[in-house]
Amino acid sequence: MKLPMDIKLARLRELMKTASPTLSKGQGDQESGGGGVGLSAYVVPSEDAHQSEYTAAPHKRRQFISGFTGSAATAVITMDKALLWTDGRYFLQAEKELDPDHWQLMKMNTPPFPEIHKWLADNCSRGSYVGIDPTLISENTWQKWGKELATRESKLVPVSQNLVDMVWAEAAEERLAYEEKELFVYPLQYAGEKWEGKVDRVKAQMEEEKCELLVVSELDEIAWLFNLRGSDIEFNPVFFAYAIISANQNPLLFVNQSKLTSEVKQHLEGVVLKPYEEVFTVLDEMVQKCVEQKLKVWMGPQVSHALASTVTGKDEKLLLVKNTPTKMLKAIKNECEVECMRQVHIKDGIALCEYLRILHTNLCRSSTGTEGSSKKEFTEISGSDMLDGLRSQQEGFISLSFDTISGSGPNGAVIHYKASPHTDRKLCADELYLVDSGGQYWEGTTDVTRTVSFLSSPPPKQVETYTLVLKGHIALAELVIPEGVIGYKIDCVARSALWEIGLDYQHGTGHGVGAFLNVHEGPQGISYRTNAHEEGLRENMILSNEPGYYESGQFGIRIESLMVYRKHVTKYTLHEGKKFLKPETITCVPLCRQLIDKSMLSDKEVNWVNDYHQFCWDKLTPLAEKQGKTELIEWLKKQTQPL
Amino acid sequence: MKLPMDIKLARLRELMKTASPTLSKGQGDQESGGGGVGLSAYVVPSEDAHQSEYTAAPHKRRQFISGFTGSAATAVITMDKALLWTDGRYFLQAEKELDPDHWQLMKMNTPPFPEIHKWLADNCSRGSYVGIDPTLISENTWQKWGKELATRESKLVPVSQNLVDMVWAEAAEERLAYEEKELFVYPLQYAGEKWEGKVDRVKAQMEEEKCELLVVSELDEIAWLFNLRGSDIEFNPVFFAYAIISANQNPLLFVNQSKLTSEVKQHLEGVVLKPYEEVFTVLDEMVQKCVEQKLKVWMGPQVSHALASTVTGKDEKLLLVKNTPTKMLKAIKNECEVECMRQVHIKDGIALCEYLRILHTNLCRSSTGTEGSSKKEFTEISGSDMLDGLRSQQEGFISLSFDTISGSGPNGAVIHYKASPHTDRKLCADELYLVDSGGQYWEGTTDVTRTVSFLSSPPPKQVETYTLVLKGHIALAELVIPEGVIGYKIDCVARSALWEIGLDYQHGTGHGVGAFLNVHEGPQGISYRTNAHEEGLRENMILSNEPGYYESGQFGIRIESLMVYRKHVTKYTLHEGKKFLKPETITCVPLCRQLIDKSMLSDKEVNWVNDYHQFCWDKLTPLAEKQGKTELIEWLKKQTQPL
Repeated sequence: MKLPMDIKLARLRELMKTASPTLSKGQGDQESGGGGVGLSAYVVPSEDAHQSEYTAAPHKRRQFISGFTGSAATAVITMDKALLWTDGRYFLQAEKELDPDHWQLMKMNTPPFPEIHKWLADNCSRGSYVGIDPTLISENTWQKWGKELATRESKLVPVSQNLVDMVWAEAAEERLAYEEKELFVYPLQYAGEKWEGKVDRVKAQMEEEKCELLVVSELDEIAWLFNLRGSDIEFNPVFFAYAIISANQNPLLFVNQSKLTSEVKQHLEGVVLKPYEEVFTVLDEMVQKCVEQKLKVWMGPQVSHALASTVTGKDEKLLLVKNTPTKMLKAIKNECEVECMRQVHIKDGIALCEYLRILHTNLCRSSTGTEGSSKKEFTEISGSDMLDGLRSQQEGFISLSFDTISGSGPNGAVIHYKASPHTDRKLCADELYLVDSGGQYWEGTTDVTRTVSFLSSPPPKQVETYTLVLKGHIALAELVIPEGVIGYKIDCVARSALWEIGLDYQHGTGHGVGAFLNVHEGPQGISYRTNAHEEGLRENMILSNEPGYYESGQFGIRIESLMVYRKHVTKYTLHEGKKFLKPETITCVPLCRQLIDKSMLSDKEVNWVNDYHQFCWDKLTPLAEKQGKTELIEWLKKQTQPL
Repeated sequence: MKLPMDIKLARLRELMKTASPTLSKGQGDQESGGGGVGLSAYVVPSEDAHQSEYTAAPHKRRQFISGFTGSAATAVITMDKALLWTDGRYFLQAEKELDPDHWQLMKMNTPPFPEIHKWLADNCSRGSYVGIDPTLISENTWQKWGKELATRESKLVPVSQNLVDMVWAEAAEERLAYEEKELFVYPLQYAGEKWEGKVDRVKAQMEEEKCELLVVSELDEIAWLFNLRGSDIEFNPVFFAYAIISANQNPLLFVNQSKLTSEVKQHLEGVVLKPYEEVFTVLDEMVQKCVEQKLKVWMGPQVSHALASTVTGKDEKLLLVKNTPTKMLKAIKNECEVECMRQVHIKDGIALCEYLRILHTNLCRSSTGTEGSSKKEFTEISGSDMLDGLRSQQEGFISLSFDTISGSGPNGAVIHYKASPHTDRKLCADELYLVDSGGQYWEGTTDVTRTVSFLSSPPPKQVETYTLVLKGHIALAELVIPEGVIGYKIDCVARSALWEIGLDYQHGTGHGVGAFLNVHEGPQGISYRTNAHEEGLRENMILSNEPGYYESGQFGIRIESLMVYRKHVTKYTLHEGKKFLKPETITCVPLCRQLIDKSMLSDKEVNWVNDYHQFCWDKLTPLAEKQGKTELIEWLKKQTQPL
């Protein structure tokens, strides 16, 4: 039974009236401990208990309650209002998907819309309770919101029983059951380091910080640490688990037993395996010992309030909130991972080039302006299906690394576009086509965007803006940096060519990418946004380089390649040991020649393009030959000629 | 009687043993309120009660107690140690000046040296008291340090009676008496806006933030707000005062009566004038009323703990700590101020060009390598004395805006070099010469650095690095930015040419500059350091553009001009109202031609240099003619020829 929105909200509001906050010591007013206190507002975040960006179907609570399907948003329900905060990428989609009779869109980072916690403080009556599932909010956010609410004598309260789940339970068939999927070992030939060695390096950092325990709750960190992968979340080869590393005992992994094959169990010899659900009780006991001995516990800033409060509820001073060592160690790839990532980009490049060749062959208009009648037709969806198929033919392919973005003409301007039968456009020579896609392979993860025109001379503004985006892409690809520079301090180099003529793009320039892990990973990034937990760029980190330009209702341009920061030998040496890094682009897919105005490029930029095309040719042709793709080699030959 | 260091420290330690923290409500343990508690450590900052960068002689307490004369450092004295924290600019100087028998240098931002508050927490025994004069520490720092100390059950305690002053009193003749100097009105023809209008704009922002009171403690903000100037601090035309703006009453200015001429009093009609010292008692009463009515009080993050605690001691929630509106309004110049700043840079340029011409004439070696015998000789000091003299001859000159930095050869590599008879080098053709100087004039404030060689073909590395520094200077001067971008996000454009060959410079690229006010002003800046209180760049802000390169023991290069961010009309318009800015360079002093390797510059960069030189020629020659400086015109003609 699909519940109508008014029923859903009415049921939720019923539950809010009698909700029982779980107010343990240090978490709130002790006098209001027991029975229902009534909530003025209930907050439903997008994330799961691991603060995952992508979530499994049973965790899509915010989507269930609001009807909005985008990946990032927070819903707030009060007795008479229902509001959804989302960011600029999703304004159009949210306006379409939200039922205006019930829901109000709150635009993030857009005056005069207030931030969520400010709105809560200003709109809930003084002394109110605002409820949230404490496993779904990071400790950082908890602290910030709680402080704001306190200015109105209101309180953020943890409600352990998830109220949306209770409503959802009544709509049983709408909720996909959670399915246990088996883990698999990530072989040493790809991982490059045994998990035991990783644990030792983690422990060394714990020792430096004088921490007795480290709690790891982010799924990619756990998968990386133990050289395991899973299939619990679409696109991300991770599995639901928690890990606790203790200075002097064996590591603990909390994961459901039914996921564990005998191979995995053997691989994990020396790890204490516990059921997933036991993390809270086990941690509680371990923390108790730390408290008695005044030993510190380390958790990442994304850790849930529920986990953090096992420590803060006993002794606030014992909690160290700081990026976990697993996060940084995972992001700095070893040489084996780097080499695997290089290799995987060759086969991934073959798949995307083959797709672009087919489109090119079928869509390119001859110079007389007529289209050949024998040519095949493609739409955004049939095109991306073909691309997905080509990718899956490559050896070692596991899955896509995210939903392919396949946008023609105006749809290319929708940054997080997902084609639906509703919006599906026919690909045609008149429209610029943007395709952003990637795969998960045994050897690693890919993410690449190319924007192509099928015209021999595309409209001037498309050429101008493509060339400016390319200038930004080259500027970042060529930028030598001192190791440790934080990404937001260099993001501008990819924008300055656009700024000069009054243009810009409303997304970051680069995100971290995992090695057969999440396509978005921290702590590294290159964005115009300042992120307090972002860390500096280090040797062997992998990031995307993806400036763009989006002309609403007309076309979108993005040029995205992955790059690995490598040590750069400089002419001079500043003072002892200051290391400089330079990106090595590892994506092998030629750029769209017709969209480049050579006269706008400096000699150095022209050389960069020619060198890059030579690199694509050198890397792709041996594999294309091996795969017998002679037409592709012909096509590559043309595409990679010097400008 | 000049007290020897061991006596000074012994006296201070005596006083620390019996110090009486002023622990009022909310400021600490109430039980320890009355008598002396004994301090484990006493902290002596550089700043005065207004967090001024430059201080008046009687406020140079840190210098008195430590013997270190640099502008930025913090001293910490314990029962058995005396430590001084300073930053990279001052390591060499501190090593020279500190008495190693008593003092230990702690290098800031240099592992393994800990931060001050971490050191205090780790080195004072548990439960200690760390004392400080609460008027000399910003509320922000107070909070941060207090939190750190609390992790060891130690406490930061306010000691109202300044212990260094007590020691200093015994060395009476060493301490310069404080001299009351008269204020003067800053005429409307320069200020461009009446103080009443400024107060109205401040009140409008207070209304937006729903604040009843605004407390202004930074001296340049007070001078700007009331269109007054003073002479209390060398180089900075400010005066000791506090201001309180109240939503519904007349503004209050706390300034000693003896400083007030009848003209100033007339100018301030409508302002309630109170003695400087009364600020605490008056504020206390006003805050009391705010507390009763739950009204908010606004103070800047730099406000002293002593001021902030008048509010936090009663009700923490009523204090808004955020950059004051005066800070931002002051930094955004009006059209009159911009035009005055443009004009003042012409006469200042004449003075510096005349100096460089004289040096050039007397020091340039002919191509045969022999120096003419009739030529005059100069040293770093006699040269800068001549420059100061030339500047003072310009109409409207008031004072220098900072101590002239005149550094030849290796001394040019000392970023904050001040020549002394001890270090004074003869200027000669073999050495690169760096001169960083500026003046205060009725029309505004200047700050300019030029690096010159007196050789017709200087050594290749000097040419190479000068040209790279110039490339960075041009990149920033040409960078179009969206209004509101924070400076640390664009600083890299001035460094990337140096980074490419493994070089860098350890200072920010740009600082704000006042209009006949402080040569360093916030909240704007362009630095590699992230500053939580820095605000985005706005139209009509004035900043320096001063990349550099320093080869220790060899030479220093810095190219500094001031620029004003002006609205830039772009080819395209992004979305409604997004404004782009481009710097307009206002300093008029040609660059050193022999140090430029044209082959390293792009066409665009060559054009920039030629356009800049044309601008210098156009601006300087009319005034040079008026001043009858024919030799200067000849010299300028040569210097401003196209490359």
